[in-house]
Amino acid sequence: MALLSQLGSPIDLRKLKINELPKLAQELRAFIIDIVATKEGHLGASLGVVELTIALHYVFNTPNDNLIWDVGHQAYGHKILTGRKEIFETNRQLNGISGFPKRSESEYDHFGTGHSSTSISAILGMAIASKLKGDSNRNHIAVIGDASIASGMAFEGLNHAGVTDANILIVLNDNAIGIDPSVGALKRYLTNVKKGTAKDENIFECLNFNYSGPIDGHDLDTLIKEFTRLKAIPGPKLLHVITTKGKGLKKAEENQVVYHAPGKFDSETGELAPKSTENLPPKYQDVFGYTLLELAEKNEKIIGITPAMPTGSSMKYMMHAFPNRAFDVGIAEQHAVTLAAGMATEGLIPFCNIYSTFLQRAYDQVIHDVALQNLPVIFCLDRAGFVGEDGATHHGIYDIAYLRCIPNLIIFTPINEEELRNMMYTAQKGLKNPIAIRYPRGSGTTQDWKKPFQKINIGESLELRKGSDIAILSIGPIGNTITEIISELDHNTTIGHYNMRFVKPLDESLLKNIFNNYGYIITVEDGCKIGGFGSSILEFANNHNFKNTIKIFGIEDSFFEHGTTQELYQLAKIDNTTIKKHLQKLIETL
Amino acid sequence: MALLSQLGSPIDLRKLKINELPKLAQELRAFIIDIVATKEGHLGASLGVVELTIALHYVFNTPNDNLIWDVGHQAYGHKILTGRKEIFETNRQLNGISGFPKRSESEYDHFGTGHSSTSISAILGMAIASKLKGDSNRNHIAVIGDASIASGMAFEGLNHAGVTDANILIVLNDNAIGIDPSVGALKRYLTNVKKGTAKDENIFECLNFNYSGPIDGHDLDTLIKEFTRLKAIPGPKLLHVITTKGKGLKKAEENQVVYHAPGKFDSETGELAPKSTENLPPKYQDVFGYTLLELAEKNEKIIGITPAMPTGSSMKYMMHAFPNRAFDVGIAEQHAVTLAAGMATEGLIPFCNIYSTFLQRAYDQVIHDVALQNLPVIFCLDRAGFVGEDGATHHGIYDIAYLRCIPNLIIFTPINEEELRNMMYTAQKGLKNPIAIRYPRGSGTTQDWKKPFQKINIGESLELRKGSDIAILSIGPIGNTITEIISELDHNTTIGHYNMRFVKPLDESLLKNIFNNYGYIITVEDGCKIGGFGSSILEFANNHNFKNTIKIFGIEDSFFEHGTTQELYQLAKIDNTTIKKHLQKLIETL
Repeated sequence: MALLSQLGSPIDLRKLKINELPKLAQELRAFIIDIVATKEGHLGASLGVVELTIALHYVFNTPNDNLIWDVGHQAYGHKILTGRKEIFETNRQLNGISGFPKRSESEYDHFGTGHSSTSISAILGMAIASKLKGDSNRNHIAVIGDASIASGMAFEGLNHAGVTDANILIVLNDNAIGIDPSVGALKRYLTNVKKGTAKDENIFECLNFNYSGPIDGHDLDTLIKEFTRLKAIPGPKLLHVITTKGKGLKKAEENQVVYHAPGKFDSETGELAPKSTENLPPKYQDVFGYTLLELAEKNEKIIGITPAMPTGSSMKYMMHAFPNRAFDVGIAEQHAVTLAAGMATEGLIPFCNIYSTFLQRAYDQVIHDVALQNLPVIFCLDRAGFVGEDGATHHGIYDIAYLRCIPNLIIFTPINEEELRNMMYTAQKGLKNPIAIRYPRGSGTTQDWKKPFQKINIGESLELRKGSDIAILSIGPIGNTITEIISELDHNTTIGHYNMRFVKPLDESLLKNIFNNYGYIITVEDGCKIGGFGSSILEFANNHNFKNTIKIFGIEDSFFEHGTTQELYQLAKIDNTTIKKHLQKLIETL
Repeated sequence: MALLSQLGSPIDLRKLKINELPKLAQELRAFIIDIVATKEGHLGASLGVVELTIALHYVFNTPNDNLIWDVGHQAYGHKILTGRKEIFETNRQLNGISGFPKRSESEYDHFGTGHSSTSISAILGMAIASKLKGDSNRNHIAVIGDASIASGMAFEGLNHAGVTDANILIVLNDNAIGIDPSVGALKRYLTNVKKGTAKDENIFECLNFNYSGPIDGHDLDTLIKEFTRLKAIPGPKLLHVITTKGKGLKKAEENQVVYHAPGKFDSETGELAPKSTENLPPKYQDVFGYTLLELAEKNEKIIGITPAMPTGSSMKYMMHAFPNRAFDVGIAEQHAVTLAAGMATEGLIPFCNIYSTFLQRAYDQVIHDVALQNLPVIFCLDRAGFVGEDGATHHGIYDIAYLRCIPNLIIFTPINEEELRNMMYTAQKGLKNPIAIRYPRGSGTTQDWKKPFQKINIGESLELRKGSDIAILSIGPIGNTITEIISELDHNTTIGHYNMRFVKPLDESLLKNIFNNYGYIITVEDGCKIGGFGSSILEFANNHNFKNTIKIFGIEDSFFEHGTTQELYQLAKIDNTTIKKHLQKLIETL
C-alpha cells in the first residue's frame, strides 16, 4: 500500500503522476477487499468504480466541486480516498462510519444517498445554486448506475436538467446490474448503444444532454482524458461509462448478485466463509418466497411483483418457476404499486413485495390507486423495523404510522413465520380490501415453519396468556421478546400477553375485554411511536372512555443510525432488558 | 343534438357512419360547453379530446377493450358518451357524478384517475392480465398528456412496458400544456418532433415502443384510420396525437390556462361571468404568492419551486419577477423535493410549494433527502383539508398524519392569512429544521392581510380566549369556526380557545397549563383523525399522565367524495352546527 498509505486526501491524490494511478487502483481495490472480507458490507459496487473514483477526484477539485454517489453503497473507495481510510474498518458498525455517503461525516459527502436515483435532482439543485452565486466554474457531478437511472425520479431530474444551463455532469455507471441484473426498456436500449446497434440519435441527446461515451470505466487514461475534456464544457452533460461490478475479484465478477454484499469471505480467493446458519430458523424472506411459490402453484391468479429486489425478497423462486407471472419491474416502486392495482381490477391477485422503507416511494399510489379504489392488492412489506447495518436511510419504522391513516387498508404484522405464511394463504383466498403485511429482515423463530395452512380471521387478535393486572399488547415478532421476558419473570401471573397481529382493523371486542380486566396496558412495537400502533390504542381507549394507564414502547422521534439490530433495539429502549426492568418495577407497585 | 341525443352508449355510436362523426363532435363539444358554462368544472382538456374520444369508442370495443384517461379531467366527453349524458349536469356536485373517471360509476371507467401519470402502469397491469387469461385480442388503451408523460411514474411504466409483449396502446395527447404550459426536456423534444427537427430515432422507439405520429387529433378520419391500423398490431405501441386544448371555443383556445377550469362563462362567447369575489378576502394562494415575491425581493437566497402548479399556487408572481429563481419543474414532485434539498445544502432557502395531496408523491424524498439530513427546506402545502369539488382523489387530509411521524420536521398550520405570511417571513429568516406549512384552498378571513411582518416563535401556540372548563384546541383556519361558535354561544365563559398553530413541535408548556386547568379538552382539525393532531394530543396526555376527557373532531376513517367544502365539512361532522351542538350539550352537563 505504498501509494494509498501516503494519501490523506484528494489533494495528495492530485499530486500523483497519471502513470502511478493504476497502482493506486490496485491498492485501493485490495484495501476494500481486505476490509469487507472480514468486516462485511457492500463489495461489488465499490470494486466496480475504483478507477472512476480515482479519476473523478484526480480531475475535479473536490470538495469544492460537488460529487454525489447515487445509492451510496458504491462509495467505499470515495470514503477511503477522502480521509476515512483509518476508520474504514468501522464501516457500518455502531458509532462507526456509515455504509453510505453522509453529510455529517465529511465535507466530501455532499449528499446522503441510501435510496437510489436521488443524485440527479440533488446535484441539479447544487448546480443551480452555484449559478445563482455567480460561480460558473464549479463542477457538479453525479455518478448513477444504469439500474438507478431507470427509476422515475431520475427521469424527472434529467427532464428538468435538460432545459437548464446548469453545470452538471451525470456519469452513467453502466454495469447492467443494480443488486440484481438491470431490467427494462432503457437497459435494453443501453445494451444496444454498447453493441453499436442503436440508431443515430441518443436518448439522452433527445433530453438535451451533451452525451459522450460509452467508454471503458476501468481505463484510467481514458477516464482522465474524458473528464478533463468535459470539465471545460458548460451545461448538462452525460458520460456513459462501462464498468464491471466486482471488478478485480474473480468470484465477484462471476457472481455479481451474491457478491453485492457477500458477508465474510477469503480476501485471496473470494471464497465465501461458511455461514453458521444451519441451525437457524429460515429467514422471513425465504418463508415469503417459498410460500408464494407454493400458493402460486395452486392458485393461478397469483402474481408476484418486486421493484428490483428478486433476490433480497426471495421473489426469485416464483420468478424462476413462473416467469410469466412474477415480475421484477426495476427500481420503480410507484409503477409496481399501480401495476398491481391494474392487475387487481382484472381479478388477478398481486403480491407486491416492497421493502418498508421503499414503500415510502409509492405512498401516493397506495392511497390513490389502491386504497381509494379498494383493490385487494397484497403488499408484503419486507425489512420492516430496524434493518441494522444499512442504517438511518433504510430502517422500516414509519410504515405503521403512514399506512394507518389510509382508509380501507388492512395492516397485519405476523409474530412468526407461521403467521406470515397463514396470512399469505388467507389473503390469496380473497380479501375485500388491500392489505399490508409487514415483517422484518432476517431469521424468525420457528424451525418447523412449513405447517399446513390455516386461515386467519381478519381483525382477530390472540390472547397468548391471561394475567391479572398488566396486559402487554404486542405487534409483530417483538412479541417473542415479550414471551421471553415473561418466562424470565417466572411467568408472573399478573402479566397477560396479547399478540395483536392487526394494527388495522383493531380487534375492538378483545380490546374492550382487556381494558375492562387490566389496570395497566403496555403496547410494544418496533416502529415509530408517533402515530404508531401505541397511538392506535390511545385512540381506541379515548373513543371508549377507558382511563387505564397505558405505556407505549416504540421508537422515539429521532433518526437512528446503523448498528446491529440488537444494538439498535437497546438504543431505542425496546429491548428485553429495558422492557423487563419496566415490568419488574411495575409489578413491585401492584 | 340530433345525433348525441340518440346515443345511449358506445354501441349506438358504433352504428353511426364515419361521415356523421364530425357532426357528433360538434354536438358533443356544444353539450360540454353548455353544461360547464353554468355548472362549472374542467373545460379545456375535454374540449381538446372530443374527436379523440369519439374515435376511440368508435374503433375499439369498449368496455371490453380497456380505456384509461390519465388525469381524468379530460374525460367529460367519455362520460357523456358512456351513459352519463342525462346526469352529466350533476358533475362534481355532492351525490352527483365525479369529475374524474371512477370505477364504481361505470363499467367504462376502468381506472380512477385524479392524480396524473398513473395510466401507463394501470393499463399495463390490465394488459398483462389479459395475456395471462389467454385473451390476446383485447386492446388496452391509455390516453396521456405530454405534461403527464414527463412525470417519473409514467417513465417507469414505459420502461417496463417496452420489454413486454403486452397489447397496449399509449395515446400521447400532445397539446403542450397541462394546467400550465408543459415544461422540460421531453416537451422540448416533442416540439422538435412536431417541427420535424428531431433526428432519426424516436425516444419512444428507444424504449422499444412501436411509435407512430404525430397526427392531427382533431381529424376524425385520420384518427379512425390510425386506430384501426394499430388495433391489429400486437405489443406496446405509442401514437403521438396533436390536439389543441380548449378546441372549439375561441377564448378557451386563446387562454388555455384560464379556461382549464374557468368557472361560469357565456356558452356562446366564452366570456367569463363576473365573479363576485370583490369583497372577499384574498385567496390563501395569493397571500402565498405575493408574500413570496415580497420576501424574495429582499432576500436573494429565496428560491421558489412548484411541480406544475405556477398558476394554482400563485408561484407565478415570483416566476415572472425572478425567472432565474423560481422554477416550474413539471409534474415531478419527487424531483421538486430533492432539488430543494440540494439547494438547501448550498445555503439557498427553497420554498417548495406542493398541494397536500401531491406531496404524497414525494413522501420518501421528504423523509430521506430532507428530514434525515435536517435541511431547512420550506414546504408550503397548498390545498390542505377538503378541496371540494375535485373530490376523493384530491382532498389534502392525510398530511398531518403522514408528516407527524417524521423526525426533525416542523408542522405549522396558520389560522389565517396573516399567520401564513408571518410564518413565511419567519422561515426565510433561517430555521434549523425543515418545515411544512399547510393551508387550505380558497379565501381566508382577513381583508387587511398585508400587515408588517412579525416573527413567530417556533412551537408557540396562542391562547385566544380563557375559559373555565372546556378548552378547545384548534389547528388551522377551522379555528375561525370555533371563534364563530363561541360568539354564537354568547361567549360562554366556560369555553377557552387555543390556536395551536404547531402540530409539531407541540407547545408542551402551554398544554400542561391547559390540561391542569380544564377538565374537558376538545381538539379540532380538518384532517384525518387517525394519527392526526388529535392523536398528538392523546400522546401528549398519555406521556404526562393527564386523565382529562378528550374529544377529537376530525375526519373519520373513510374516503370522502366531492361536494362543496361546506357540504363536506357537514358530512364529516366538523362543521359549525355539529361542534356547536356538542358544546351546548357539554355545557349543560357542567
